[in-house]
Amino acid sequence: MIEINCFMDKVINDLIIIGAGPAGLSASIYASRFGVKHLILAKEKGGTIVWASEVENYPGIASVSGVDLAQKFLEHAQKLGVKIENQEVKKITQQNNIFQVITANNSLFQTKSLIIATGTKRRVLGVPGEKEFLGKGVSYCCTCDAAFFKGKTAAVIGGANAACSGAIHLSKFADKVYLIYRQSKLKAEEAWLRDVMSLKNVQIIYETQVTEIKGKQTVEKIILDKPFEGSRELTVSGVFVEVGGVPLSEIAKDLRIEIDGGGYIITDKDMATNIPGIFCAGDLNAFWQDLKQIITANAEGAIAAFGVYKYLKGRS
Amino acid sequence: MIEINCFMDKVINDLIIIGAGPAGLSASIYASRFGVKHLILAKEKGGTIVWASEVENYPGIASVSGVDLAQKFLEHAQKLGVKIENQEVKKITQQNNIFQVITANNSLFQTKSLIIATGTKRRVLGVPGEKEFLGKGVSYCCTCDAAFFKGKTAAVIGGANAACSGAIHLSKFADKVYLIYRQSKLKAEEAWLRDVMSLKNVQIIYETQVTEIKGKQTVEKIILDKPFEGSRELTVSGVFVEVGGVPLSEIAKDLRIEIDGGGYIITDKDMATNIPGIFCAGDLNAFWQDLKQIITANAEGAIAAFGVYKYLKGRS
Repeated sequence: MIEINCFMDKVINDLIIIGAGPAGLSASIYASRFGVKHLILAKEKGGTIVWASEVENYPGIASVSGVDLAQKFLEHAQKLGVKIENQEVKKITQQNNIFQVITANNSLFQTKSLIIATGTKRRVLGVPGEKEFLGKGVSYCCTCDAAFFKGKTAAVIGGANAACSGAIHLSKFADKVYLIYRQSKLKAEEAWLRDVMSLKNVQIIYETQVTEIKGKQTVEKIILDKPFEGSRELTVSGVFVEVGGVPLSEIAKDLRIEIDGGGYIITDKDMATNIPGIFCAGDLNAFWQDLKQIITANAEGAIAAFGVYKYLKGRS
Repeated sequence: MIEINCFMDKVINDLIIIGAGPAGLSASIYASRFGVKHLILAKEKGGTIVWASEVENYPGIASVSGVDLAQKFLEHAQKLGVKIENQEVKKITQQNNIFQVITANNSLFQTKSLIIATGTKRRVLGVPGEKEFLGKGVSYCCTCDAAFFKGKTAAVIGGANAACSGAIHLSKFADKVYLIYRQSKLKAEEAWLRDVMSLKNVQIIYETQVTEIKGKQTVEKIILDKPFEGSRELTVSGVFVEVGGVPLSEIAKDLRIEIDGGGYIITDKDMATNIPGIFCAGDLNAFWQDLKQIITANAEGAIAAFGVYKYLKGRS
């Protein structure tokens, strides 16, 4: 028996979905269609796609901002009746066949099954000045903050899709954009590569890392680990950090849900974890580690919801 | 060396996608984004979703007709530059690392890799009268033909999603709809079940099969394998056959692509078949046999395209 002061919801849900990104919302749409009563608990609505300036690979919608696409998913799920509670899940315990989900403000929810779709959180550089200048030149979202750098010089750190598309977006505002990557070759989709390489005001600096961010009131320069054009100092007013995500699998640990070396949850092809009744979908799932897409997250959400549907039928 | 009279295209494509349904078009969108030059060969554009009256589970688009959704996929793929040839593939052969694709009108295309996304064709009842009355009361598409039965009585044969959603659509036009299913329980999504069961002008006849379709110029009645309300004859003007699909895996046989007992192509989780360079996505793929959805077909298409991208990189 756990001893904790909680606001306990006595209802035993059939399903709780944790996370409201593409995977969680698709799982909800399918759960609703399958008639599985459920609740979504999510710290934020929309998931990491809200940081994407432009989504051009969601089949059927040729071009859309991440925020708008997230809104479409959200409206679709809510139209089918789901309730979304804005609560961060802190802990999950299990008693017999029932899971107890405890949130940051000590609410307790009970459920027969779970879909974990918490995704990843944004990785930081971890260099001096990064925290101090957050909102004063340091940003983790090109889409949100590019317009502040109109006519200025800014750097994007990273080399995958988010960094390249971010640099493209930023180049519409800034006079000059440096794209700084530690590898010798960018690893984005060819479409982003083609675009980013064709821009005259984007300069790519390979095999280089940022070691410090400096300034007075706001960012004034960054320090590189090796000289670029003769100097380790680069004058910029903005630093956009686009270096990927870290899996949010903390809550998996208490229940001994199997995770891989990188912290991603391991499932079978039905998105079932090693704990009966617990499924996982989206960026947090190790299943398609190499191709984390909105469309694959959605598919995983649908498959997980179908898994839950079959699991609950088997129990009743 | 194959001996055949063909119109041979001397270009060796990086990729040919066979089929232009959700899987094939999503594969094309992703192939374009990955910079893989390719061609689509397809007997028809849109795939089987064009027969769906209403799609309500494609995340982000709460309600859309199958025809309109297919059109969105098509436009998205074409916007990215793909060329679609309206040709039915009859045979695939292999010489060294190159595949030869031969179509029904004896054109020959060459390619380094293939994504087979031909899906399924509609299953028929195979009863007397079915062929004779095609277009004279017999239809395989509620969406297309329901309006012809305004004020009349018609039957839908089947019990899965397509049959239930078809009966719902038909009930808006026909005065009376019989939904005739050989099993004792419908096996559609709960959302369709709830709707179809709530309709006063839809009557479900369980554990019953149609053995013959009769009439003079057009359909007048169907014969059942057991009496319903005292008679084996049921007066209807229309018969909608919605009894599922048959995998279109004929072209897989010559190359000895591995298929399962039902005729579906077996792949690994990257959608790769046993033949290096050949991938399969969508309804024809055995991978998620239990949950054939638009969203899973799209995801499979994206994953197959990524598989091709990696395969071609490994070759070059």
